Amino acid sequence: MQVKIIKPKAAVLMGSKSDFEVVRPALAVLKKFGVEFEARVISAHRTPAAAHDFAVNAKKNGFGVIIGVAGKAAHLAGVLAAYTTLPVIALPVKTSMMGGLDSLLSMVQMPSGIPVACVGVDGGENAGLLAVQILSLADETLSDKLSAFKKEMAEKIAKDDEAVVEAAKNI
Amino acid sequence: MQVKIIKPKAAVLMGSKSDFEVVRPALAVLKKFGVEFEARVISAHRTPAAAHDFAVNAKKNGFGVIIGVAGKAAHLAGVLAAYTTLPVIALPVKTSMMGGLDSLLSMVQMPSGIPVACVGVDGGENAGLLAVQILSLADETLSDKLSAFKKEMAEKIAKDDEAVVEAAKNI
Amino acid sequence: MQVKIIKPKAAVLMGSKSDFEVVRPALAVLKKFGVEFEARVISAHRTPAAAHDFAVNAKKNGFGVIIGVAGKAAHLAGVLAAYTTLPVIALPVKTSMMGGLDSLLSMVQMPSGIPVACVGVDGGENAGLLAVQILSLADETLSDKLSAFKKEMAEKIAKDDEAVVEAAKNI
Amino acid sequence: MQVKIIKPKAAVLMGSKSDFEVVRPALAVLKKFGVEFEARVISAHRTPAAAHDFAVNAKKNGFGVIIGVAGKAAHLAGVLAAYTTLPVIALPVKTSMMGGLDSLLSMVQMPSGIPVACVGVDGGENAGLLAVQILSLADETLSDKLSAFKKEMAEKIAKDDEAVVEAAKNI
Amino acid sequence: MQVKIIKPKAAVLMGSKSDFEVVRPALAVLKKFGVEFEARVISAHRTPAAAHDFAVNAKKNGFGVIIGVAGKAAHLAGVLAAYTTLPVIALPVKTSMMGGLDSLLSMVQMPSGIPVACVGVDGGENAGLLAVQILSLADETLSDKLSAFKKEMAEKIAKDDEAVVEAAKNI
Amino acid sequence: MQVKIIKPKAAVLMGSKSDFEVVRPALAVLKKFGVEFEARVISAHRTPAAAHDFAVNAKKNGFGVIIGVAGKAAHLAGVLAAYTTLPVIALPVKTSMMGGLDSLLSMVQMPSGIPVACVGVDGGENAGLLAVQILSLADETLSDKLSAFKKEMAEKIAKDDEAVVEAAKNI
Amino acid sequence: MQVKIIKPKAAVLMGSKSDFEVVRPALAVLKKFGVEFEARVISAHRTPAAAHDFAVNAKKNGFGVIIGVAGKAAHLAGVLAAYTTLPVIALPVKTSMMGGLDSLLSMVQMPSGIPVACVGVDGGENAGLLAVQILSLADETLSDKLSAFKKEMAEKIAKDDEAVVEAAKNI
Amino acid sequence: MQVKIIKPKAAVLMGSKSDFEVVRPALAVLKKFGVEFEARVISAHRTPAAAHDFAVNAKKNGFGVIIGVAGKAAHLAGVLAAYTTLPVIALPVKTSMMGGLDSLLSMVQMPSGIPVACVGVDGGENAGLLAVQILSLADETLSDKLSAFKKEMAEKIAKDDEAVVEAAKNI
Repeated sequence: MQVKIIKPKAAVLMGSKSDFEVVRPALAVLKKFGVEFEARVISAHRTPAAAHDFAVNAKKNGFGVIIGVAGKAAHLAGVLAAYTTLPVIALPVKTSMMGGLDSLLSMVQMPSGIPVACVGVDGGENAGLLAVQILSLADETLSDKLSAFKKEMAEKIAKDDEAVVEAAKNI
Repeated sequence: MQVKIIKPKAAVLMGSKSDFEVVRPALAVLKKFGVEFEARVISAHRTPAAAHDFAVNAKKNGFGVIIGVAGKAAHLAGVLAAYTTLPVIALPVKTSMMGGLDSLLSMVQMPSGIPVACVGVDGGENAGLLAVQILSLADETLSDKLSAFKKEMAEKIAKDDEAVVEAAKNI
Repeated sequence: MQVKIIKPKAAVLMGSKSDFEVVRPALAVLKKFGVEFEARVISAHRTPAAAHDFAVNAKKNGFGVIIGVAGKAAHLAGVLAAYTTLPVIALPVKTSMMGGLDSLLSMVQMPSGIPVACVGVDGGENAGLLAVQILSLADETLSDKLSAFKKEMAEKIAKDDEAVVEAAKNI
Repeated sequence: MQVKIIKPKAAVLMGSKSDFEVVRPALAVLKKFGVEFEARVISAHRTPAAAHDFAVNAKKNGFGVIIGVAGKAAHLAGVLAAYTTLPVIALPVKTSMMGGLDSLLSMVQMPSGIPVACVGVDGGENAGLLAVQILSLADETLSDKLSAFKKEMAEKIAKDDEAVVEAAKNI
Repeated sequence: MQVKIIKPKAAVLMGSKSDFEVVRPALAVLKKFGVEFEARVISAHRTPAAAHDFAVNAKKNGFGVIIGVAGKAAHLAGVLAAYTTLPVIALPVKTSMMGGLDSLLSMVQMPSGIPVACVGVDGGENAGLLAVQILSLADETLSDKLSAFKKEMAEKIAKDDEAVVEAAKNI
Repeated sequence: MQVKIIKPKAAVLMGSKSDFEVVRPALAVLKKFGVEFEARVISAHRTPAAAHDFAVNAKKNGFGVIIGVAGKAAHLAGVLAAYTTLPVIALPVKTSMMGGLDSLLSMVQMPSGIPVACVGVDGGENAGLLAVQILSLADETLSDKLSAFKKEMAEKIAKDDEAVVEAAKNI
Repeated sequence: MQVKIIKPKAAVLMGSKSDFEVVRPALAVLKKFGVEFEARVISAHRTPAAAHDFAVNAKKNGFGVIIGVAGKAAHLAGVLAAYTTLPVIALPVKTSMMGGLDSLLSMVQMPSGIPVACVGVDGGENAGLLAVQILSLADETLSDKLSAFKKEMAEKIAKDDEAVVEAAKNI
Repeated sequence: MQVKIIKPKAAVLMGSKSDFEVVRPALAVLKKFGVEFEARVISAHRTPAAAHDFAVNAKKNGFGVIIGVAGKAAHLAGVLAAYTTLPVIALPVKTSMMGGLDSLLSMVQMPSGIPVACVGVDGGENAGLLAVQILSLADETLSDKLSAFKKEMAEKIAKDDEAVVEAAKNI
């Protein structure tokens, strides 16, 4: 008997093509961790039918987590969460309104019953990493890669530490 | 020959039954001005299908304007506006997050292409009046009533003025 | 017998000539939808008499909606609303004070009895579209154009979607 | 030869009768300092004509300073300042929107050319004192009273100091 | 052959016992969905060693997700996330500083590399639901329960809708 | 018999030389209106003795009004007001902390008993104009100049209006 | 030979007697740690001379640290810091303006050259503890007491932990 | 008999190498005052073990004060304070979120029992000076240097004053 494990994919939906630079680090993380992903422009307001269709079918289409990226009155993550039981990560985009406080509050302050998992403003890398952490529940190999990534980061900081110790000598 | 003019109705949709007290003054205004209205609890997140259906059919069901009432990550007005070309009035509800700044920003900061007409936080009466002003474009009698209402308000202020002039004598 | 329908016009009043770039997309929308408009510099503080005169006479001069554009302690929309029963759209201009939160609050938080219809900060296009939506109550052809515009937007997003799907392959 | 000096009066205009409790300490200060005053309810939005008339005639009616009191989108002080060259003191009223930040910004952030003199939120006593300070330019006796008031305050603090020194012994 | 599936547990860590009322709805949700959980008081600042130990061992102790609950300079979720690769849900507690904006920003604005999954201020129920959604990746039965829960909510709203339709008749 | 009227002067005190560009329009206004002024760098924190000495002697040195200019924890105006009964105008300087909200709140929120007259952030021209308005209580010629200035402004706006009417034709 | 070590005292200065309840926990901490202290009501604005005199003489009067407590435009700590080289702890008091953000910004955002050591809003206990930490540089016994206090806190949390573990069983 | 006095050192820990420019003025101050210091990159989130180790051993390694520098959800100072009884100075770094309000609140709003001494956003020089003030409790020579520094600053302001007096002549 053979069991073929289908690893769940990640979806990264942005409300506008202009969000792509914020999204890029999320995609880079997913790729680095070997997570299959789909990146799409789907707007809660301008293509609401597409948002509906994507969310309703996400689970049966093999997705395990969805990242919703939007700015200002950022409804995308909430609208997706309304239509799916998958965890939805909300990635608020920086705006000129208090550095993106509008995007952040529009996403994080969801009403009881429909949560989203919000990361910081313009936190593309963290959205990607959180997706990996969530998917690691269904894929043990991701846990090991996350541990390795933590070590990598620590080593980078240790190098920066050495550089700063050196630089401080010349103050 | 006879022409039957069908006057457009107002819809007042709230995201939660707990918003009813904020909505009440809006309904009172609509009633006072003789505007037919429907008041409903429809949630962008908990009953998204109902929101979709209401908005898609609002125009052909005889509505001329929709008031969307919600708090926190207040997506209702924006979600309705995504599905209709009718003007949508957004009425943000006070919360404990900076007095409802979350509701306000989640509503007013809509992306280009999908406007809503936002009134102040907990501004139920104003939401109702704005609906009447908008409907007055299709119903001249409302204009006259609005002018009368303005006079009424001015007279009330004039009376308050007299009372304060009197009260100030006792300082 | 002949009936000449006079379609109501839109007025776009800005508090300062420096607001013109924020106003431009509103004018472009009005033009695109074939709505006749007048654009003016009228200041609530520096030419209050002009503001008074414009608002008092707006209805009989054929206007159906007024857009008031201002920044900082942005009183223009409120002052116009005090003198007319027409719907007044408030368009707050970005400032260096928290990205225009001063303009936004000065406009949206109107006292009971005198509503304005506020759009987002620097939301010129949305101010124009909201004006068209409001005027569509008195002009059915605008409704059809708004539906067409919604489709246009959706198609643009669909194209952006394809582009991003492509771009994501190169992450 | 005889010269009759007419001392300028203070006007205290509030946008709503409900502001009276915030205004009361201002009136009490004016009375304490022997400044003649008039307290009125005049709304920039609900009785704009009264606001216009008051401001236009304030100087020739013997006023030397005007206090404008309002909350939320608090336009009253700015509207008065538009119509007079007298100094206008703005007294923002506390609201549930971030403790009155809406009132404060709507008043203090006036555009170039039309200043108001803003005091703190609910700062009734300070509005009264600032009026007295301003009027003292035309009435030397007020300066002396202000100096005496400063001494009085210092003495009160000194007494509080003694009480606290005592209280601290029982910690 | 028999396979015993060990379902991952949820941990709910609060920085202070006084957070328990905010935590209670999260625990209620976990119980309702049949998720085994542990609730603890562990402070990032007052018992940092306990925080360290819990996070370092959480995975091998059978936890699949951790909820960190804290207020003000709310470091708990971030500190836990520093020591584990499990997804950490951050639940910010309301404070008197702008309704908990301090708690929210202290949690959501995590630096690149160490994400947390933030829910809204005092969003206890949503923290619990998000935990269930995340755990559903490793436990298909939870997905079904989540779908049932969505239906339940929709039915509750539908009932509220009927009640409001009724209540509106008496306006 | 001859009476020599000594017209009161204006003082403009800035906390740092770097505030000079914000101060410049205030000085330009004072010059334009023929008000004698002194501009000084005096810091509440770095030269507190100078601040004390200036304020204590300001009245007898012929000043009628003082403008205090500062940024961040902007104590200068308040410190001056502590030592004088002259009206003190507070001019908050823009910072990178929410566009100068720190400067604004540090100035405007004075405790009861010690008012300052706050203008908007970076409102140099308005600080100058408010000083002139205040001084006009002791110098009738300034009132006339202020009226003329108001007319001048209105004419400038009228010209801008014409330019915009023209520009709008080319939309 | 005998050396008498004079341990430096702590001063706790509040701008108003009404701040006493915020100050009380600071005094309780100082007493608990055996630090001699003086508690005073001294206002930067109402008794500026007293503030000056206290700060100028604080060091030679045996103080090692000063806590300045104030609300709104909270200048006290900054004014004291202007006159002394002792470390000044700033304790901002909660207000109705965004929960004390005015007090906080007025204190913490000091200009370069004159630091204060700011604790959180209404953080009386922390102000006291920080004073003890600072004084511990000149008094080793305080270090030991601080270590003991840390242990005490951890034990209290451990007890709370047990109570919550128990309480969670009844969810 | 000989007593060797070991003067306590200052530690300056930053969460990221990119904070170095904010840190530089702190180091410059420490050098100017002859305080021995160590500058390190240690992250509360990416190298939490290093943070733990540094803080736990700081006192016995001869440090008298620690400056923790971080941005966004800035946990570093709080995490260090959890592990040491030394005074910890928190230096929040400017971000695009409301000019660093996230960093500020994440640092200053510490829970009862674990204080940090917060300076203003990007207040590198002040962090250094506060460290010197604190260390001066254990090293009288620093007090004298601080007095000299105060004089130096006053003289610089006096020179700026002269320059501005001159510049104002050319307005």
